[in-house]
Amino acid sequence: MTGTTICALATGQGGAIGVIRVSGPNSVNIADRIFSSPKKHFSLLQVAPYTLHYGDIVDDDKQVVDEVLLAVFRAPHSYTGEDSVEISCHNSLYITQRIQELLISHGCHMAQPGEFTQRAFLNGKMDLSRAEAVADVIASTTQASHSLALNQMRNGFSVEFNNLKDKLLHITSLFELELDFSDHEDLAFADRTELSALLHDLKAHLHRLVHSFQQGNVIKNGLPVALVGDTNVGKSTLLNAILEEDKAIVSHIAGTTRDSIEDTVTLSGYLFRFIDTAGIRDTEDTIEKIGIERTFQKISQSQVVVWMVDGIKCTKGEDLLQVSEYISKVVPSGKVVFLVINKWDEVSDKDRTTIEHSLAKTGYPSMVLSAKTGEGLSCLKEALVSYVRELSGHSEGYIVSNLRHYEALQSALLCVERAEVAMSRQLPSDLIVQDLRECLYHLGEIVGEISSSDIIHNIFSKFCIGK
Amino acid sequence: MTGTTICALATGQGGAIGVIRVSGPNSVNIADRIFSSPKKHFSLLQVAPYTLHYGDIVDDDKQVVDEVLLAVFRAPHSYTGEDSVEISCHNSLYITQRIQELLISHGCHMAQPGEFTQRAFLNGKMDLSRAEAVADVIASTTQASHSLALNQMRNGFSVEFNNLKDKLLHITSLFELELDFSDHEDLAFADRTELSALLHDLKAHLHRLVHSFQQGNVIKNGLPVALVGDTNVGKSTLLNAILEEDKAIVSHIAGTTRDSIEDTVTLSGYLFRFIDTAGIRDTEDTIEKIGIERTFQKISQSQVVVWMVDGIKCTKGEDLLQVSEYISKVVPSGKVVFLVINKWDEVSDKDRTTIEHSLAKTGYPSMVLSAKTGEGLSCLKEALVSYVRELSGHSEGYIVSNLRHYEALQSALLCVERAEVAMSRQLPSDLIVQDLRECLYHLGEIVGEISSSDIIHNIFSKFCIGK
Repeated sequence: MTGTTICALATGQGGAIGVIRVSGPNSVNIADRIFSSPKKHFSLLQVAPYTLHYGDIVDDDKQVVDEVLLAVFRAPHSYTGEDSVEISCHNSLYITQRIQELLISHGCHMAQPGEFTQRAFLNGKMDLSRAEAVADVIASTTQASHSLALNQMRNGFSVEFNNLKDKLLHITSLFELELDFSDHEDLAFADRTELSALLHDLKAHLHRLVHSFQQGNVIKNGLPVALVGDTNVGKSTLLNAILEEDKAIVSHIAGTTRDSIEDTVTLSGYLFRFIDTAGIRDTEDTIEKIGIERTFQKISQSQVVVWMVDGIKCTKGEDLLQVSEYISKVVPSGKVVFLVINKWDEVSDKDRTTIEHSLAKTGYPSMVLSAKTGEGLSCLKEALVSYVRELSGHSEGYIVSNLRHYEALQSALLCVERAEVAMSRQLPSDLIVQDLRECLYHLGEIVGEISSSDIIHNIFSKFCIGK
Repeated sequence: MTGTTICALATGQGGAIGVIRVSGPNSVNIADRIFSSPKKHFSLLQVAPYTLHYGDIVDDDKQVVDEVLLAVFRAPHSYTGEDSVEISCHNSLYITQRIQELLISHGCHMAQPGEFTQRAFLNGKMDLSRAEAVADVIASTTQASHSLALNQMRNGFSVEFNNLKDKLLHITSLFELELDFSDHEDLAFADRTELSALLHDLKAHLHRLVHSFQQGNVIKNGLPVALVGDTNVGKSTLLNAILEEDKAIVSHIAGTTRDSIEDTVTLSGYLFRFIDTAGIRDTEDTIEKIGIERTFQKISQSQVVVWMVDGIKCTKGEDLLQVSEYISKVVPSGKVVFLVINKWDEVSDKDRTTIEHSLAKTGYPSMVLSAKTGEGLSCLKEALVSYVRELSGHSEGYIVSNLRHYEALQSALLCVERAEVAMSRQLPSDLIVQDLRECLYHLGEIVGEISSSDIIHNIFSKFCIGK
């Protein structure tokens, strides 16, 4: 544990209140030196923890910098687990800078990004996976991503996960004990049957966690949906129609290329990233060919493809079966395709029956709508939300949303599988132990039991300052 | 006083911590309904004021929205003078919105901009002039403007000012009493000599306050400095040289017209607004003439003119006495002019003596420098800072920086002067009383003793929400 005292502005720009956080063994001491209370014989050193104090921040010439409210926390009952002080001041750049200058001149250090949460981790207030979730809680913009991050921050990985990890540690120790006594061939501390059962449970559990990442990633970063179809099929109109109803929480993300604009929209608490694409039909035009290649790229990046067909063209002979054959050729397996007939308001009742008939034959989940009038739009939205909900159904319990955890879990799973193979082939114990040790290493990485200072630094440097 | 309970986010975007303020009779009650403490049998209703409490904000389905720190204040010992609660949460848009939604669903109203400070005013926690200073404290960017605003927020107008106002009120009451008994001609409650002396003191005091506005305005909004001189004299280089040393606190304000860019810079804690201008010499070119007219406009808007002359041209015959005559023609009296010889590094020692000799004859304060090398730059900066400091010397005590106060003080001064005239001409008492009443009205306006709800609304609507 570091013995320094750190400070940083923890609030953003533009509000009425600024909060400056101070944490470390000298927090209260330093704050006491720049704090002046209207009460006589007042000292911050003598106040009860979890209390607030009104007074002035004064500089060394006793000039008042601001009237503030000051909160005092005592180790270990604080966010960082150290003595801490929070100063609420008027949120002017001048005042917040001046107060930090004073704190620093009395011995504080400027906090690095994430250093408060890093200290909470180092002082055992939360494990690494929970500390990481703090940044996700702050970044979350939808109900689903917020619940996910909050659950991770509060509970970390499941009790079941920890039990399996503890059991694995126990069995690995027994194996290692055996190796120490390897002269005595008949000694077997570790029960092979028990290990087999444990590896089996562990594999199932890791499998589920690794699989949950797909859902976790969708919840955290949004479900990527590619909008595909001919020019003039109404892709933009559809996109606008979906966005329009949800203007308050819509944002436009400029993509890496000028022509790739992603629109995100929240439906029923889930985030969707709509990727608009160029046309996709066979073409001789070179430039258009480049556009089509990009479309294929985008399809491969997406998880759901909304393939739009012009309803009027259908009545004029466009063959839906040919379209569906083409889709099956160009869309990689594993993607979900929704076949959407647009401009339904301009299709006559007679034609509607014909189209619906051939739609059923395509084998793709399909819907008919009018992006212009909004008719049928809710069906598409419901289908998208159901899809995400279904993803959730696949994984009960803890959902992995952190790429670092996902990679560690994958590595751990690989080790378990190797150990199982080694067991079944009755390979020597020291090879099995090697796999078990590696597996433990990767599991330990996630909660921070095993971690290099580089990893720790990398994790917390992604935080904002003051957290 | 209003009986509603209000809430608002008081912190800005981008930080780690969000603070939601709640104020009003039901604050603690409402907060208690959405707050869940890990302690058993805990109720916010029973906690001591000025204490902090760790726990969860939970929705009606007992779902956790966030882990928070909650501060409780009890009337009248709070910012607003009402029962208040402050909730420190993770600063995610989702969380801060969700908590406000919950507060509102339990009976809170969204606060209007400035409503917290407005309530502080209405509950007698601060007078109007002090409440107004809160917004200035937050907006202040330099040490001088910060000191000014903070002093105003903490102390309001001087004791002297209030004494004079009280005395005026007393004498006015006596005069009105006389009018009530006007049948008795010989009755004279009010001492004319005393009133004369009071009006004399009041006039001097108001005069000083009205005059201090020039300085207050400079401190608050910056001293406007016009940079004037021929093309290629090095105006931009000089501006950049001044700005360069102070990059951290430099901002660029796009002016109303495309060609009018103002640069602000803080020197020794004072703010300066540099206004770059076009050339100013006699010309036949129409377009250039328009530019020159603009230059004259900018000179009239400035308080200090830095008139730049090319040192090399001086050595080639440019007559500094002619230049100074021209300056006296085009610069309105009342403006301070600094005559600056640029490119001093390119002038030979012999020529330097000649130039310095004729400079002395111009009668203008002058300095020689090289914008390119930075030589002599500090002299100009010191001259500018001294000028602002000198302004401060002219007005001891309270400095007016608020336009509303300035106008009210001017009106009050006018009334005092009218009353003095009326006294000296021995006009009837009821005419004098009319002036005194009007004067009291304007003085009362400043501190909010007399104010229509329109004025109050207008003042606080300029605040940010959450203050």
